[in-house]
Amino acid sequence: MNDHQHNTARVLIRLREQRPLILSLTNNVVQSITANMLLAVGGVPVMLTHSGEIRDLLNSCANGMLVNVGTLSEPQAQTMLTAVKDAHEAGIPWVLDPVAVGLLHYRTQVCRELLQTPPAMIRGNASEIIALAGAEGALCRGVESTAASAAAINAAKALAQRTGAAVLVTGETDYATDGTTTIACRNGAEIMTRVTGVGCAMGALAAACLACAQTPLQAAVATAAILGIAGERAAAACARPGTFAALLLDELATLSADDVAKSALLDEM
Amino acid sequence: MNDHQHNTARVLIRLREQRPLILSLTNNVVQSITANMLLAVGGVPVMLTHSGEIRDLLNSCANGMLVNVGTLSEPQAQTMLTAVKDAHEAGIPWVLDPVAVGLLHYRTQVCRELLQTPPAMIRGNASEIIALAGAEGALCRGVESTAASAAAINAAKALAQRTGAAVLVTGETDYATDGTTTIACRNGAEIMTRVTGVGCAMGALAAACLACAQTPLQAAVATAAILGIAGERAAAACARPGTFAALLLDELATLSADDVAKSALLDEM
Amino acid sequence: MNDHQHNTARVLIRLREQRPLILSLTNNVVQSITANMLLAVGGVPVMLTHSGEIRDLLNSCANGMLVNVGTLSEPQAQTMLTAVKDAHEAGIPWVLDPVAVGLLHYRTQVCRELLQTPPAMIRGNASEIIALAGAEGALCRGVESTAASAAAINAAKALAQRTGAAVLVTGETDYATDGTTTIACRNGAEIMTRVTGVGCAMGALAAACLACAQTPLQAAVATAAILGIAGERAAAACARPGTFAALLLDELATLSADDVAKSALLDEM
Repeated sequence: MNDHQHNTARVLIRLREQRPLILSLTNNVVQSITANMLLAVGGVPVMLTHSGEIRDLLNSCANGMLVNVGTLSEPQAQTMLTAVKDAHEAGIPWVLDPVAVGLLHYRTQVCRELLQTPPAMIRGNASEIIALAGAEGALCRGVESTAASAAAINAAKALAQRTGAAVLVTGETDYATDGTTTIACRNGAEIMTRVTGVGCAMGALAAACLACAQTPLQAAVATAAILGIAGERAAAACARPGTFAALLLDELATLSADDVAKSALLDEM
Repeated sequence: MNDHQHNTARVLIRLREQRPLILSLTNNVVQSITANMLLAVGGVPVMLTHSGEIRDLLNSCANGMLVNVGTLSEPQAQTMLTAVKDAHEAGIPWVLDPVAVGLLHYRTQVCRELLQTPPAMIRGNASEIIALAGAEGALCRGVESTAASAAAINAAKALAQRTGAAVLVTGETDYATDGTTTIACRNGAEIMTRVTGVGCAMGALAAACLACAQTPLQAAVATAAILGIAGERAAAACARPGTFAALLLDELATLSADDVAKSALLDEM
Repeated sequence: MNDHQHNTARVLIRLREQRPLILSLTNNVVQSITANMLLAVGGVPVMLTHSGEIRDLLNSCANGMLVNVGTLSEPQAQTMLTAVKDAHEAGIPWVLDPVAVGLLHYRTQVCRELLQTPPAMIRGNASEIIALAGAEGALCRGVESTAASAAAINAAKALAQRTGAAVLVTGETDYATDGTTTIACRNGAEIMTRVTGVGCAMGALAAACLACAQTPLQAAVATAAILGIAGERAAAACARPGTFAALLLDELATLSADDVAKSALLDEM
């Protein structure tokens, strides 16, 4: 067992013990699977839309927050801009999921504005990370990346250095970096891309891992490994999308720290 | 078979015959499971957001309404305040689900305002019912209660007396009261708390039972027993959350009045 | 194999090859199943709410659009009215799903306004198509039709002639017409009406078929046949609603062009 496997197992143990409460400001399509994946793994999901209530929760019992711009509207952007400042003041770590940034102009500008308040983690596909890092020419096709995740490693490092966040680039292989250390996670299954919201819900899982890990990099690695291993196990039982979606929740609920320590495919690059 | 078992079986029979149409003004996270649980048990779900359309429906074919403040926004609060008045004028019974009241200030104030129009039923966990009854010191952790349901029985009775509604406090044991008679329902399974929206969808089931029961108290008891028995049967087949969620719908669809009469654990206190 | 079976098989083959990207402006209840059904069959789902982003997508990588008025609000109506004009200018075919038109006044008026920009397809139940065609006296009960689909054939033909769209009337038998040719599709299973959003998601599947068919009529026929056959196969495995919903996605993902060519029950009237 290497250090990364050991740390990932410890994050899962703490997640089950501490049951972190995660506020997800996320898109309309994935709220249910986001809450269900978080509940399955051991967290407590909350979704809110009112800025005053968001502040109430951040100042009482929230342990982490996700901001996902998948179906961004102007009122929601204002709510998110206020929420990240409130989270920062309350010392609550937050995760940015810059869905389709680079393709759609409004959210690209809003995400740049959100980043003026430092997130603890940024999770995106290769196209999104490249676009957010400021490179020209990156494009995604809707929510699908047009680039392989490895193509975004340098952009991810630059983005981590500039923002202070851990960056998790997801794809066939996931890469987690804090700008200095970069770790490849090779768990996962192709069918995970055929169920709406698995990637988006990963952002809420990341926020839960942040509340239970010693560093944002450890949290990013644990997020990729825990979800990837659960996905592999569910896909081995059934790789058809409807049944797989139910089994993925089942596996997240029953995955043990031992399973994670043994199965996590984590290599420092 | 005691009277409460008999009445619950009758509610289920009528629900299947009458197929009540229930308008749910509910939170963004649970709309799909709310509609699916209602459809499974025999009701007809409708969700709307436009006040004029809500009035159209209340004045044509609606048989009941749910108001759930889980992701309350200011425009939605205005819509709900108008809708409960319209429902009252149209003689349509409505159910209030005061999600996280007591923890979050904005919705606490809105729920107190909503209660100026009398609901037929209020469904909440112990923390929510205690907070809504006006007691100090009640707190919940997000959507989770920090108190056992039995701790809220007195608050539930007081709330029933003050509002004229039946109150259903849900937890490991559910308690239904009209302020005079209180009935404990001991059906259910712990895994039900690990699927997003089962509790919220219970409010829509409650509205459907109101349309088919002789009294709000009977409807509250039937709601707890029907959902609890379906949950027990599904959990006996698989207590992992993804598979369980599908089986819960299957059981709601196939549960017979005989099953309910035999399995309902209902005791007058 | 008749021509309609042959064309339907070809649409499915192209759908898997081309993976059309479909923008769905749809109601809050069904976004998840809409995205999952589209992903399962081979398309790429996108949901957006911001008019500028909708225009970005329509002018970059969208291949089709769905407009479903199920939970219409005034801001969403404005967004939809702009979106259909943008789609028309960009040459992107769009599908109208006039949910509950005829029963609810606001959306009835908005749908009439939307139709000033010509859609490629209109999909509705009998009550909705009769109401949209302008006949008096059509009523639905929430989202359920009060009329059998055959009763709407003349209204569907008239609506197709007036708008230039293919019209797909869904019910126990589905009817597709371009105003001249009318085809009955007898695939499907009753349990499909007990899962929220199967009908609404059909609109997104229709938009995907439009991108892969030679005519809107072919696309309407393919939509009815592909979904109907997947539904029959899933129902044969399990006709309980929770399990059925998962199996429907599984069948959509594994259905072959041969299956479709052999099983499609398509008759020209």
